[in-house]
Amino acid sequence: MNISAPSSPVCILGLGLIGGSLLRDLRAADVQAFGWNRSPSKVQEAVDEGFDVSGDLPEVLQRAQTNNAIIVIATPLPAVEAMLDAIQEHAPTCTFTDVVSVKTPVWEQVQARGMQDFYVGGHPMAGTADSGWSAAQQGLFDGAVWVITYDHAEKNGQAPSDEWSDRWVEVARMAFLVGAEVVPSRSRTHDSAVARISHLPHLLAESLSIVGDNGGALALSLAAGSFRDGTRVAGTQPSLVRAMCEGNREALLVALDEALELLTDTRATLAGPERSVQDLAEAGYRSRVRYDVRAGKRENVGLGVTASNRPIIRFRPGEKGWMHHLVQAEEMGARIEIF
Amino acid sequence: MNISAPSSPVCILGLGLIGGSLLRDLRAADVQAFGWNRSPSKVQEAVDEGFDVSGDLPEVLQRAQTNNAIIVIATPLPAVEAMLDAIQEHAPTCTFTDVVSVKTPVWEQVQARGMQDFYVGGHPMAGTADSGWSAAQQGLFDGAVWVITYDHAEKNGQAPSDEWSDRWVEVARMAFLVGAEVVPSRSRTHDSAVARISHLPHLLAESLSIVGDNGGALALSLAAGSFRDGTRVAGTQPSLVRAMCEGNREALLVALDEALELLTDTRATLAGPERSVQDLAEAGYRSRVRYDVRAGKRENVGLGVTASNRPIIRFRPGEKGWMHHLVQAEEMGARIEIF
Repeated sequence: MNISAPSSPVCILGLGLIGGSLLRDLRAADVQAFGWNRSPSKVQEAVDEGFDVSGDLPEVLQRAQTNNAIIVIATPLPAVEAMLDAIQEHAPTCTFTDVVSVKTPVWEQVQARGMQDFYVGGHPMAGTADSGWSAAQQGLFDGAVWVITYDHAEKNGQAPSDEWSDRWVEVARMAFLVGAEVVPSRSRTHDSAVARISHLPHLLAESLSIVGDNGGALALSLAAGSFRDGTRVAGTQPSLVRAMCEGNREALLVALDEALELLTDTRATLAGPERSVQDLAEAGYRSRVRYDVRAGKRENVGLGVTASNRPIIRFRPGEKGWMHHLVQAEEMGARIEIF
Repeated sequence: MNISAPSSPVCILGLGLIGGSLLRDLRAADVQAFGWNRSPSKVQEAVDEGFDVSGDLPEVLQRAQTNNAIIVIATPLPAVEAMLDAIQEHAPTCTFTDVVSVKTPVWEQVQARGMQDFYVGGHPMAGTADSGWSAAQQGLFDGAVWVITYDHAEKNGQAPSDEWSDRWVEVARMAFLVGAEVVPSRSRTHDSAVARISHLPHLLAESLSIVGDNGGALALSLAAGSFRDGTRVAGTQPSLVRAMCEGNREALLVALDEALELLTDTRATLAGPERSVQDLAEAGYRSRVRYDVRAGKRENVGLGVTASNRPIIRFRPGEKGWMHHLVQAEEMGARIEIF
């Protein structure tokens, strides 16, 4: 059932890298997909390519409501509140998800509006340093992880309603359809993890970029692979870096403090009588080996991580106790298969 | 004249990634090249592939002396002193160079032995996370920068001897022959630059690797492009990381302190009332753009950086005032062409 199409049309709000790539993938899979974008020039570009896209948000959402579409909020975090308000006004009974890289603030905004019965959060872990409609491409999600949240079920402290279970499955099917591996997680756990593996990398890359540049023309001329790779995500638009890092402030501070402690300790052992970076070099190497094992050591194969070594948990959504499978998968970092 | 072969045979001491790749390239270019390696099993592997390689260091060096070969020290830094002693004993009038990623300690060891009339330092900026003879490959230096030092000339405070100028040209020609771009630099300037763009990246990658791993199975499963790229060089053998970082201790401490200050300031603005990473994100982006411009934004084209936008300085080695061209190239981070 993983590869069967979602039963409903899909309405995408925001046609940047993620939303645009999703629109391309869904059309390629013959799923009815339409979208909205704020920028008239981008709307025109998409229309010129034959996509079903409009700049009229109420109209697009009313159409979603009429067609019982799944709505995907694919805007940056700062625009999410406006999207939620518009959904509540124009498409109040549609299943909706989002692709924001930080999940707790979205979950809080959803709860604040009492919209949690209709919401299943998402985060496709596919990005490039480029952004916007022009960077969108078919196949972006192929082999990438797509996190799907399940806070609502946990919050109730009881088995979720059949209706909400169905909505969860609809969102999961959409992710499967575009080739992603679905990993379930609660928002807070997700945010703690991505602070470490997605947001901290940006802060370190920005710092490395500046320190290298401080070395002037010779340093920039000598920069090779380690600098190029280590600074790649410093090429991300600063506004996007701010949105994700500032939106995940608490978890990022924890990760940043761990990094600062490691670097400060290393500074001390390198400057001190040991004159050594041994502890850091050995621990860093061991950790990277663990990551390689999990990722299947298939670097540079695609835009996402193809992770043949991620464990798999299979279950039937809606069956008695299926929430336990989600918790188990989250703890193991497992991808799921549903039947 | 850039592409003409060196006039002498080449003797390579140490057949790891750099030495082994150089041996492959020179053979492919029909240059007489022979080598020594400490490990008998690696010697056997190279011999089995038809390479002219031995485990007998005195014999190899005596042959270099007889044939007036250029000697390339391609061992890690800790083995350099033993190599210098052996060269002084068995091949005292050969031109010799090295490929060590830190130049000041080598230059000091050369001076301590009074061998500077025969020495021209080198550093090819080509590496992968893999190491050893098995990782060596033809074409590794194609488009990469190969730094060639000229401390000896500066130290004299006068025009270098014709003999030393000829040795400098021999080493430069060898680098040109394997497709590298030659950038001249004094040892101390080089070391300051590589601390920023080559050694600091290792410390940041190790730290990121550990902090990600601290997030457990879920974090490792969610890790995608930014983590993979940001931790790539944490896959380097810890002994190699130690050799380069500890060997460039003073310059690396300067670079590390700059990074720590940036990260500490960012920690304060993110935790404080600003709740912002704006300054870091914007400055890091600007610096990365400057690097992209210099590197010609040709990422992932090869193992080295293909840098069509590096400025070029052309001159004739040995002509009056040619040292000024080297100084100028160093300040501009320019590659040179000689005629």
